[in-house]
Amino acid sequence: MVETQHPHHRHLEQARSQVIELLSRQAIERDIVSRSENRNQDVVAGLVARQQRTQLSLRLAQFHPADVAFVLEALAPEARAAAWNLVGHDRRGAVLLEAADAVRRQLVAAMPAAEIAATVAPLDSDDIADLIAELPDEQRADVLARLDQSDQAAVRSVLSFPDGTVGAEMDLDFVSVREDASLDAVLRYLRRRGRLPDDTNQIFVVDRQNNLRGVLSLEHLLLGDPEQSVAELMDANPRLFYTDDPVHEAVGAFERYDLITAPVLNLQNQVVGRITVDSVLDSLNERLQRQRLEEVGLSEDQDVYAPIPQAARERWAWLGINLATAFISSRVIGAFEDIILQLVALATLMPIVASMGGNTGNQTVALVIRGLALGQLGGPQLKRLVWRELAVSAYNGVIWGAVLGLAALLLYQNPGLALVISVAMLLNLIVAATVGIFAPVLLDRFGRDPVRGSSIILTFATDSMGFLIFLGLASLVLT
Amino acid sequence: MVETQHPHHRHLEQARSQVIELLSRQAIERDIVSRSENRNQDVVAGLVARQQRTQLSLRLAQFHPADVAFVLEALAPEARAAAWNLVGHDRRGAVLLEAADAVRRQLVAAMPAAEIAATVAPLDSDDIADLIAELPDEQRADVLARLDQSDQAAVRSVLSFPDGTVGAEMDLDFVSVREDASLDAVLRYLRRRGRLPDDTNQIFVVDRQNNLRGVLSLEHLLLGDPEQSVAELMDANPRLFYTDDPVHEAVGAFERYDLITAPVLNLQNQVVGRITVDSVLDSLNERLQRQRLEEVGLSEDQDVYAPIPQAARERWAWLGINLATAFISSRVIGAFEDIILQLVALATLMPIVASMGGNTGNQTVALVIRGLALGQLGGPQLKRLVWRELAVSAYNGVIWGAVLGLAALLLYQNPGLALVISVAMLLNLIVAATVGIFAPVLLDRFGRDPVRGSSIILTFATDSMGFLIFLGLASLVLT
Repeated sequence: MVETQHPHHRHLEQARSQVIELLSRQAIERDIVSRSENRNQDVVAGLVARQQRTQLSLRLAQFHPADVAFVLEALAPEARAAAWNLVGHDRRGAVLLEAADAVRRQLVAAMPAAEIAATVAPLDSDDIADLIAELPDEQRADVLARLDQSDQAAVRSVLSFPDGTVGAEMDLDFVSVREDASLDAVLRYLRRRGRLPDDTNQIFVVDRQNNLRGVLSLEHLLLGDPEQSVAELMDANPRLFYTDDPVHEAVGAFERYDLITAPVLNLQNQVVGRITVDSVLDSLNERLQRQRLEEVGLSEDQDVYAPIPQAARERWAWLGINLATAFISSRVIGAFEDIILQLVALATLMPIVASMGGNTGNQTVALVIRGLALGQLGGPQLKRLVWRELAVSAYNGVIWGAVLGLAALLLYQNPGLALVISVAMLLNLIVAATVGIFAPVLLDRFGRDPVRGSSIILTFATDSMGFLIFLGLASLVLT
Repeated sequence: MVETQHPHHRHLEQARSQVIELLSRQAIERDIVSRSENRNQDVVAGLVARQQRTQLSLRLAQFHPADVAFVLEALAPEARAAAWNLVGHDRRGAVLLEAADAVRRQLVAAMPAAEIAATVAPLDSDDIADLIAELPDEQRADVLARLDQSDQAAVRSVLSFPDGTVGAEMDLDFVSVREDASLDAVLRYLRRRGRLPDDTNQIFVVDRQNNLRGVLSLEHLLLGDPEQSVAELMDANPRLFYTDDPVHEAVGAFERYDLITAPVLNLQNQVVGRITVDSVLDSLNERLQRQRLEEVGLSEDQDVYAPIPQAARERWAWLGINLATAFISSRVIGAFEDIILQLVALATLMPIVASMGGNTGNQTVALVIRGLALGQLGGPQLKRLVWRELAVSAYNGVIWGAVLGLAALLLYQNPGLALVISVAMLLNLIVAATVGIFAPVLLDRFGRDPVRGSSIILTFATDSMGFLIFLGLASLVLT
């Protein structure tokens, strides 16, 4: 059996939890000690604490940088700062790279430019660019100036690509060879060069102008006859990307075609980098974590340890918009106060009509958002979806409207009221399907993220129209 | 510049859309022709149609199987069946593997067992297992019996692992060598063996009992001295998984540690397969697509071309539950009809209190679900989150309660009413935070998916409690 220096993940989880608990407890104890006046106790506690710190530092050193980042994320700010001091200087860059945005920002904010430069220096230049992209302009320039010349140039070039493009995500470290070389010559070149860049499963074949000619897989390099030339074995039609391609297209292609790496070309068709499945996996995972938060108007980089008033304020925009729409819906009801006084059952029943509209509409929104993400809503498909959702809503509106009408009849023995609520339900479900399709589709057309705004628009429509239809029909029929 | 036989994805999107349109139009034209009585026109149309079919078949043959699957998914059922006939027999298995569940089920349902067996035969045995896992028991046995002996055994072994475990997702195709072999011997063995399994970035090192001793990266194999032994260059502590590990743990580990492949061991520590970043990426992408649908009670394998009544019924469970909860909330209002008749403004304002509760609660739910997914809600962290969310809610409740109270005061000039709505808002936001934390946490503790049920429970609580608190306070204070 394998000796697990990398422990299996179950043991790892335990190990992480243990370290998190020790670090948290230490921070609390230090707090108590610093408040106590007893000098003797202080000295002893200090010694114990120093010993504990050494042990913790050793344990953290055995963790993968991603696990150190996990521990830091789990700690309260004071304990986090203390834990950060226990991380070896040579590993801090790698840990920062793995940490969540909010945590990274907190740690970097406490460091002077010289320390940031020293921390990131061991990293690849594209990783350095990721880390310093978030710094305020002035501090970024300061850190950049302290890096060595070749890193500076590379970092500047990565920083020049807008967020969300393949250029901003690409890895600058790749191996390229000429097509007239023999496999044997390539192997000798690689051995001279030393280790390969992470995840290398193919090397790029370029001409003198650095234009891509093809790719040679490590498999072919290993299994081919050493006398064969690169040109004989290379794939001359590889999947490739341009620096200005959107990242989500690269994610889709990696998923569909099972890629591990792919060359990235500039607009002159020269190879300038590569994109790897790692960054694709990270970007997909980030999207998964972000999606649910965005639906409710939160940003991904919530620091769960931010002060309460700041955390509360982060939720204001969403709550403010929702209060405004709820208030407008409420004014719709206000216009019908007379009829409610004549038949108070209307007030009792009206939230049901609004709520069922919201629920069916959200089902439609979910289907549309999936269709948009998968690129399955071109012209004819969209038309088909519209008719289909309207038909499904009408079908469900008739059935659930009848159920609700029956319930209302049993409760209030008022056939007119039962009829009104049945018809109102049907009509509001049709409103819900219509808005549920067009809200996300139009947001998408205008370049907005449909995940962010669709629910608000939908709920506004199904609430206000639900009240209007139900109370309006009641005024027409029941008075 | 590279000749793009694999066209760049922008051209690819156009090519796919074009084929989809041609196939859809053909299906419609065939429909018209078959209804027309004019025999002459029929013959000409038939010739044109045959020519078009040949062209379309050729174009489909140039597509990657994933792109053929995309085209099939975009087509209505009639056109889809016609297009399926244009796909070469040797590629059908690969296309099925890439297709969405609902589409795959439709295509497979139309095939007799012998045809299914012939279609899947060229695939890897773990892929065969994936495809036939969905068949009804009897048909599955029938297809299995028609496969060759070694495939049958392998497929049965994969089928024996429960869904959601690494065993069910693993790839059975891997290369293993002994640790005392020289690199040179390994290279000769690999050349004799021919091509490597997809995504191979390392080969497994095992002993006579097939127990894992370590892994040897292709990089070391390429760059090492041919005289060196495998043992000298292998990593003796690789990341590894067991067949009964949950897939989501493997996904987390691949993401954290940037893995490409990892060995999978049975409970006797023998290597039985490997898990690759491909299946991890697929599983993550599936989760992303599924999540939003699950929140609204839909399953992922919605066929957007299913008949209307069937599509409507798929939404019933969710709508039924929502109608039931909305109805109960409505009965809460019913208990206060007397006070509404005394002050109708209560009916107008009550939905605002309920709706703001639902919105803040959903923000809490989103944070908790992310925390659960990232494994960041252990005991002390959960406690901290509870206090924190309660504090944020109280803070926001005071502020937005005051805003709403002021608005009510301006509208109705009734200080008592303004006070009641402010306090009701504060209390309902605290209810929202409490339920927003405990609904997902408890669902998760009892092994249910928190994504599925949290919103329903939350909305039920914030609606019914919102009405109860607001109308209850009003009866106490205003009468």
